[in-house]
Amino acid sequence: MGRWEPDSRGRLERAALELYSERGFENTTVAEIAERAGLTERTFFRHYADKREVLFAGGESFQDLVVAAIADAPASLPAIDAVGLGLAAAAALLQERRAFARRRHMIIAANAELRERELIKLASLSAAIAETLHRRGLSDPAASLTAEVAIAVFRVAYDRWIEASDAEDFRQIIRGSLDELKAQMGAQPVAAG
Amino acid sequence: MGRWEPDSRGRLERAALELYSERGFENTTVAEIAERAGLTERTFFRHYADKREVLFAGGESFQDLVVAAIADAPASLPAIDAVGLGLAAAAALLQERRAFARRRHMIIAANAELRERELIKLASLSAAIAETLHRRGLSDPAASLTAEVAIAVFRVAYDRWIEASDAEDFRQIIRGSLDELKAQMGAQPVAAG
Repeated sequence: MGRWEPDSRGRLERAALELYSERGFENTTVAEIAERAGLTERTFFRHYADKREVLFAGGESFQDLVVAAIADAPASLPAIDAVGLGLAAAAALLQERRAFARRRHMIIAANAELRERELIKLASLSAAIAETLHRRGLSDPAASLTAEVAIAVFRVAYDRWIEASDAEDFRQIIRGSLDELKAQMGAQPVAAG
Repeated sequence: MGRWEPDSRGRLERAALELYSERGFENTTVAEIAERAGLTERTFFRHYADKREVLFAGGESFQDLVVAAIADAPASLPAIDAVGLGLAAAAALLQERRAFARRRHMIIAANAELRERELIKLASLSAAIAETLHRRGLSDPAASLTAEVAIAVFRVAYDRWIEASDAEDFRQIIRGSLDELKAQMGAQPVAAG
C-alpha cells in the first residue's frame, strides 16, 4: 500500500462525506473512511489531522480569498461594496463545489460540535474582514459593523443557496441579499396600517 | 440548613462569578460555589441545573424581552427601527446589571465551551427576531437579513460597551452603532485617493 495513490485526498473526502451522511459524523471512524476509499489509515492522516478536518480543511484558503478580494478592491469603493466583492469571490468558489457544499451543510447541521465549529469559523472570518477594512483606513465601529454585516449577508444568502434550485447562482443570491439589505437600511416610515 | 435562606439565588450567583473569575470556570465545582455562598449543594440545584446555567439562566427572558419590544413596535416603523427598539430594551436590561455583565463577559471569553454556548445563544436570538419580523409581515430574505444585522449591531456595540467607561450608556452605544451602520450602507463612492 506504500505506492502512489491517484487523487487519494479526493477519494478520502468523498468516502468521508458518504459515511457521515449515511451513519452520522459521530458514528464514523477514520478506519472506515480509509476502507471505503480503498486506502490506509496512514494515508488518511497524511492528508487530514482528524475526521473533522475533512469538513473544515478549506476554511483557511477560503478566508484568504475573501480577505484578498477586499484588500484589492479600489480605494474609492465604499467599504460595504468592497466587502461585497469579497463575498462574491467566496460565492464563486462555493458555486464550483456545490454538491460538496450541500452535503457538507447537511452533515454539519446534524451535529452540535460541528455547528459550533462552523460558528467559530465565521467569527474568525468576521475578525479578518474587520482587520482588512482597518488597513483600508476605516475606523471602528464602522469596520467591525461592516464586517459583521458581511457575515450576516453571507449566512442568509448561504442558507438560501443551499435550499435553492441548481439554476440559482450563489453570486446572484449574494448580490440580491446585499441590495435587499441596503433597501431595508434605507427604508422610510410608512403610514400605519 | 433546611431553613429559608434570604436571596440564596443572588448569593449563589455572586459566589459562582467570584470563583469563576479567581480560578477559572473549569476549575470550580458546585460544592465550592455552595460553600462560598454559605449554602448547601442541594440549594444550588434548586436554583440552577448546573454550574454553566449560572451564566446563561437569564438568556430566555432576555430573548423574550427583545422579541416583545419588536412585536409591540408601531406597524408603521421600518423593520430595522423596530429591531432597534428591541436592541434598546436589551441594552437597558444589561445596563442595569453592568458589573455582572462585565464579569460574566471575562469568564466566557476565557473558556471555549462557554464562548460556543454564547454564539449559539445569539443564533437562537437571531432566529426569534426573524420569526417576529415574519409575524409583522416582512418576508424573507429581508426578515432574516434584518435579524442577522440586529445581532451584528448588538455584538459590536456590546464589545464596545464592555470596554467603555462607566459613563457610557449601552443604549446610546446601540443607537450610535445603528446610525453608523445606516451611514455605511448608504455610503456613496468617493474619488480614489
